[in-house]
Amino acid sequence: MSKTIKSKSGRKLDIGKVDANMVGKKMEADGLCWRSPLGKPFRLDGFYWFPKHKLFRRMPLVKLPEGVEAMACHTAGGQLRFRSDTKRLSIRASLLDASVMYHMAQTGSCGFDLYLGKPGEQRFRSVSIFTPGSTEYECELMKKPIAQMREFTLNFPLYSGVDRLEIGLDEGASLQAPSPFEDIHPVVIYGTSIIQGGCASRPGHCLTNILSRRMNRPFINLGFSASGKGEPEVAEIMAQIRKPEPSLFILDYEANTPSTESYRETIPNFIRILRQKHPRTPILLVSRIRFSYEVPEDGAALQDNAWRKERFELQTKIVKDLRGAGDRNLHFLDGGILLGEDYDECTVDGIHPIDFGFQRMASAIEPVIRRLIRNN
Amino acid sequence: MSKTIKSKSGRKLDIGKVDANMVGKKMEADGLCWRSPLGKPFRLDGFYWFPKHKLFRRMPLVKLPEGVEAMACHTAGGQLRFRSDTKRLSIRASLLDASVMYHMAQTGSCGFDLYLGKPGEQRFRSVSIFTPGSTEYECELMKKPIAQMREFTLNFPLYSGVDRLEIGLDEGASLQAPSPFEDIHPVVIYGTSIIQGGCASRPGHCLTNILSRRMNRPFINLGFSASGKGEPEVAEIMAQIRKPEPSLFILDYEANTPSTESYRETIPNFIRILRQKHPRTPILLVSRIRFSYEVPEDGAALQDNAWRKERFELQTKIVKDLRGAGDRNLHFLDGGILLGEDYDECTVDGIHPIDFGFQRMASAIEPVIRRLIRNN
Repeated sequence: MSKTIKSKSGRKLDIGKVDANMVGKKMEADGLCWRSPLGKPFRLDGFYWFPKHKLFRRMPLVKLPEGVEAMACHTAGGQLRFRSDTKRLSIRASLLDASVMYHMAQTGSCGFDLYLGKPGEQRFRSVSIFTPGSTEYECELMKKPIAQMREFTLNFPLYSGVDRLEIGLDEGASLQAPSPFEDIHPVVIYGTSIIQGGCASRPGHCLTNILSRRMNRPFINLGFSASGKGEPEVAEIMAQIRKPEPSLFILDYEANTPSTESYRETIPNFIRILRQKHPRTPILLVSRIRFSYEVPEDGAALQDNAWRKERFELQTKIVKDLRGAGDRNLHFLDGGILLGEDYDECTVDGIHPIDFGFQRMASAIEPVIRRLIRNN
Repeated sequence: MSKTIKSKSGRKLDIGKVDANMVGKKMEADGLCWRSPLGKPFRLDGFYWFPKHKLFRRMPLVKLPEGVEAMACHTAGGQLRFRSDTKRLSIRASLLDASVMYHMAQTGSCGFDLYLGKPGEQRFRSVSIFTPGSTEYECELMKKPIAQMREFTLNFPLYSGVDRLEIGLDEGASLQAPSPFEDIHPVVIYGTSIIQGGCASRPGHCLTNILSRRMNRPFINLGFSASGKGEPEVAEIMAQIRKPEPSLFILDYEANTPSTESYRETIPNFIRILRQKHPRTPILLVSRIRFSYEVPEDGAALQDNAWRKERFELQTKIVKDLRGAGDRNLHFLDGGILLGEDYDECTVDGIHPIDFGFQRMASAIEPVIRRLIRNN
């Protein structure tokens, strides 16, 4: 009985003492050889300016809008790939920040996750285990009984910067370059916190990583939490991505524009800047997904509110006008359909998708991307 | 440039300063009237012994196995329902513990979420916003422009105890009992951390809460993290649930049994104890979902490992034997199919489902539950 009362009122329950699976396992690091993934044969994707700066960073080291700068070091969409016959894989990570958010698991914001298999055939294996709030951690991601050549994809944290990363493999294990993607021309997505991956439970469930696996191609994630404002300097930087030429640009930043007016003011110029360097690359405008406040009362039929109607009309008009003026590679996709009819179930907070929502988005957008790339 | 370097190396990025949506909004509590939900017209489900102990607790205050006791105060599957014409809804919560786990969002472990609408038609509205690790918080869950009668469902935290809860409504707002469920006979599910809701992003995505919404009936969640060991004293307590008589018992605790032998030793007795008080209530055994380590290497076809085969044979044999001996209301469901072929994508850590996985489980198990209840 005393135990009962104690656990009823005690505030210091240590979940790990009850369920060790809820805190993770001790790693065995003996005999591991630690390597830096900064050079070959490791392959990094998602950090276009890495060859120049040697930083896990999504934008170049130039003057950027403040919010974009703050998010530029967040490694959303970054992937490290390689092949090895190691039986074990561990990582040591040093993070630039480790914010604990109320609505996103630490594995999503600050963790890495591991997929095994060739590009396009990857299967999820494991996720980083670490103390929430840590900026340094070391953990084992794979331990197999048999040494055989395997292909590894490590997805980087979504809401944290990575200062340093080391890869621990069995001593003497081989290390080779990964298989190439089927198509090396990246899809570049510019957007908001939703594109950055808020609030996936782990990095592999960020939209760009899901699509990269499904479509066997690289994605460059330029989602900047709260900071997808459509600034011309961001467009100028995106336009620099030319080697290889992107297969598609997706602009999905409506949710961060404070007014229809600010979207109207930024989007034509943003497209114009991209077109200067990429005259024929397809560009897809995607409007905002539905938020839970759009759910009609009392089971009434869904009606677009004035705000959604206005934005929809604006975007379809811009695309129609520019297509009429000769830009046949400009397209529009209604974000209002991406999550399905039960869109409210797809988010953690009425705004940010959870894995369930990102899978829905991926399923809705994948055929559109395939068609645009194929037809170009 | 100095800004760039600073944010590159600075470890104190405050995500809230960049994106206010990632930390939440200030609430306006003026003019709210705070009420205790312990009595009528509020309706609590999921805490069967609440009328006796007046505690948000899933088990009675008796001597319990240690792990079960530790989890008994975790409020997984608890629901508070009522109707009101308030324009605003806020909550004040005082938690018994507030562990920050590495792989589960705080909204899931320590938050409440709000659904609006009649039972069976609920739509997600919002989730608690609070500082991670807090044991006390107050937050606004709804603010509507129009006062009209609405039906509220608040889902309780999955991995925390709730010591005290207050509901803030507009002063003078009406307060009424909620609409009853279509069928008041609960489904009682006994199991592991997975049944408890690890690692849903918010309480509404716990399996029992998803099913309660879809099936318009109450569920009693007896998932005990790491502690679903099939002890006879737990069966004795489950068997006490008789008013109203459960529509179905589900036993899904295989994942917490350390060996096939311990499952073999516990399950016949567990069933026997339930049958003493519930001779004809359907009982469904569910085997363990697939974990990511079961993914075959190199794209080979999925083959059940020796362990899964052994457990499957054991469970089907037990059910067959007992049915042969006259218990026609005992059934088995292969948990290996619940998550689908890409079961690895359905978990955060290879073990615990995320919302994507819980939705899959719900979709697979719902028709089975409906059939068993209908045929009884």
